[in-house]
Amino acid sequence: MAVQTVASTTDSAVDLGPAAALSCRECGHRVPLGPVFACEECFGPLEIAYDFSAYDTEELRQQIEAGPANIWRYAPLLPVPADVATKPNINPGWTKLVKADNLAKELGVTGGLYVKDDSGNPTHSFKDRVVAQAVEAARAFGYTTLSCSSTGNLAGAVGAAAARAGFRSCVFIPHDLEQGKVVMAAIYGGELVGIEGNYDDVNRFCSELIGDPAGEGWGFVNVNLRPYYAEGSKTLAYEICEQLGWQIPDQLVVPIASGSQLTKIDKGLQELIKLGLVEDKPYRIFGAQAEGCSPVSVAYKEGHDVVRPQKPNTIAKSLAIGNPADGPYVLDIARRTGGAVEDVTDEQVVDAIKLLARTEGIFAETAGGVTVGVTKKLIENGLIDPAKSVVVLNTGDGLKTLDAVAGTGLTATIRPNLESFREAGLA
Amino acid sequence: MAVQTVASTTDSAVDLGPAAALSCRECGHRVPLGPVFACEECFGPLEIAYDFSAYDTEELRQQIEAGPANIWRYAPLLPVPADVATKPNINPGWTKLVKADNLAKELGVTGGLYVKDDSGNPTHSFKDRVVAQAVEAARAFGYTTLSCSSTGNLAGAVGAAAARAGFRSCVFIPHDLEQGKVVMAAIYGGELVGIEGNYDDVNRFCSELIGDPAGEGWGFVNVNLRPYYAEGSKTLAYEICEQLGWQIPDQLVVPIASGSQLTKIDKGLQELIKLGLVEDKPYRIFGAQAEGCSPVSVAYKEGHDVVRPQKPNTIAKSLAIGNPADGPYVLDIARRTGGAVEDVTDEQVVDAIKLLARTEGIFAETAGGVTVGVTKKLIENGLIDPAKSVVVLNTGDGLKTLDAVAGTGLTATIRPNLESFREAGLA
Repeated sequence: MAVQTVASTTDSAVDLGPAAALSCRECGHRVPLGPVFACEECFGPLEIAYDFSAYDTEELRQQIEAGPANIWRYAPLLPVPADVATKPNINPGWTKLVKADNLAKELGVTGGLYVKDDSGNPTHSFKDRVVAQAVEAARAFGYTTLSCSSTGNLAGAVGAAAARAGFRSCVFIPHDLEQGKVVMAAIYGGELVGIEGNYDDVNRFCSELIGDPAGEGWGFVNVNLRPYYAEGSKTLAYEICEQLGWQIPDQLVVPIASGSQLTKIDKGLQELIKLGLVEDKPYRIFGAQAEGCSPVSVAYKEGHDVVRPQKPNTIAKSLAIGNPADGPYVLDIARRTGGAVEDVTDEQVVDAIKLLARTEGIFAETAGGVTVGVTKKLIENGLIDPAKSVVVLNTGDGLKTLDAVAGTGLTATIRPNLESFREAGLA
Repeated sequence: MAVQTVASTTDSAVDLGPAAALSCRECGHRVPLGPVFACEECFGPLEIAYDFSAYDTEELRQQIEAGPANIWRYAPLLPVPADVATKPNINPGWTKLVKADNLAKELGVTGGLYVKDDSGNPTHSFKDRVVAQAVEAARAFGYTTLSCSSTGNLAGAVGAAAARAGFRSCVFIPHDLEQGKVVMAAIYGGELVGIEGNYDDVNRFCSELIGDPAGEGWGFVNVNLRPYYAEGSKTLAYEICEQLGWQIPDQLVVPIASGSQLTKIDKGLQELIKLGLVEDKPYRIFGAQAEGCSPVSVAYKEGHDVVRPQKPNTIAKSLAIGNPADGPYVLDIARRTGGAVEDVTDEQVVDAIKLLARTEGIFAETAGGVTVGVTKKLIENGLIDPAKSVVVLNTGDGLKTLDAVAGTGLTATIRPNLESFREAGLA
């Protein structure tokens, strides 16, 4: 049966490296690689199944270590052709894993605290990782237009990647977004269409467009290319482990929007273990949400397996998905690994942004405030063990969410002379 | 005599690796390493003199290639202790050298066009490179406070680096800067003092403060630590050559503010040649200014050796230094290497920002618009040879100068249905 499945997928015309097929996360049904995202049997989400059987552990490790300083060092573990690094793409990843000793001291962590700082990506958010995968899938399937629905980070990432990789792009956003986000999405020269409505209206419209002849030849990175797109988050797990000297950290704190990122980090860790690249040891994954959009955190605390949708109301807009598709999987992973899901208030988000900036010189977007704030709370309530290692994700850049910390400003205003300087108590 | 000089500097208590002394760029007078910046003999600028005599070329190359993915891979060539990578610092550098094939096609470059994209640094400008050096000098000289005068990028870089490296910081800016720049400078928790006056008033006040007891123990990164600080720009030359496979590009286009960066890139290239790390071959360095602040470009075109100050009026604010200290040295390098100095209008700057974004997915700040715009102009007027390789510097991030491209926005606004989509001509 397994042989039959592999044989049928090998017939596929597309070369996406070790990606062998699409497999349903719910029922395991396999289909050949293609631009589909839902199981025809049970409507479950499709994800990539790989054939890693030919790899020798030490050869693979050497190949990775000799690879480029971006996610393509992990090409043998991603749904991309082997020569991906030679194709035009945005080449994100290999961002800094900052040893956060000052923050550790403030939080009482003695086992080693690290911030994985994804603001170092080309458009300054982790979205570059997932979009880079979608670009390669779009190329393989012969698409010439990249599209998405977005409220900010994704729009910029798609615009930039499409420009560089030679795709047309047409991105849909609510028509009344902040000027900064509109400029960042428009600057790359693709079509940027404002939809009269909210983000849900934008999403609904995109689903309509996919089923219409007008959307033919369009790769929607987070819809019909989603199985490929989502795999980009695995690279966060790979990089963290390699940067720690091929070791899994004891504890990871990951933000939850749709929940996809957290599930793929778990998938990435499991793959590294199976491949023998890291030692098989227990790790705990913690999910972080803002109180104003905390459907997974609420379900976790109430002991539920399903997630009740919420209407988001938080400054952490990049995490504001009220009905997270991967919520149930996140609950499962948090419970299975001995982690937890927690949330913090908007005030705590702002405090955490300032704490991270003051201690480590990292200016995080609100999503980074959520993970740092949740880490602090989980240490205080005893769920994170401060004597063991902790990796906290910062997935975006403070320059994109300036409004959240707009109250931050001048310590003093003085006249340009020493007398005024002394009067202000600065000497 | 040379032996005597080396002997006297070896007496110095500070360990800044291969840095042997400070040497006057005008008269060659040498003094021991210390927090001084002007020659006591002739008031010329002091710069670092190195002792590289012990290095074996191939051992050095291997050491660099095995080093960290930041500027400290070049620690043997910088005024920093050998164990610098173990100390808390902001660790900038090793930013992407993007092969810009789409832009090359638009500009008619056939010899290879590259963008050195320094927006990938921790605070998204090249200033992180120079501040990281100043931090190590400040540590060596026992300073506990870092300071500077700034209109934006530098304030953020000093704030972030001071936070991480454990220094107090006190940064001076004009009191009426844009909110975004104020937030970015303030978020790291240091003192941020607004001066009632313009940037010249801020500068004058800082000079007063250095001479006052109130400024004792303060390291002004761009004043009394300037000889160390300025060396950070050499790392741009090192990285470009290493990323090209240890080759010097035929042509480099570098922005001019004070002119320091351009002179240090030339110094870095000369060092690589002397060390045998690259082949000794001709290269041409081109300087780029905005027309609204073009004192060096004007002097170049008029054949002058001195630079007549201008009152800046351009959107390229990070380059708006009307009286550039290193202007004469820039003129000398441009002429000696067969380069040139050119300027572009603000309109051309905006067009170039959009051109780079549209072709390569890189959103540059206005300074990057200046270099790309000048590159285009120099190709058109025949001064850059399109059949030879060109490296263009982007030293900052478009997110910091959104106002310059504020006119960029939505392609269309539609209702959330297919009919409206078709009516807008998007199908």
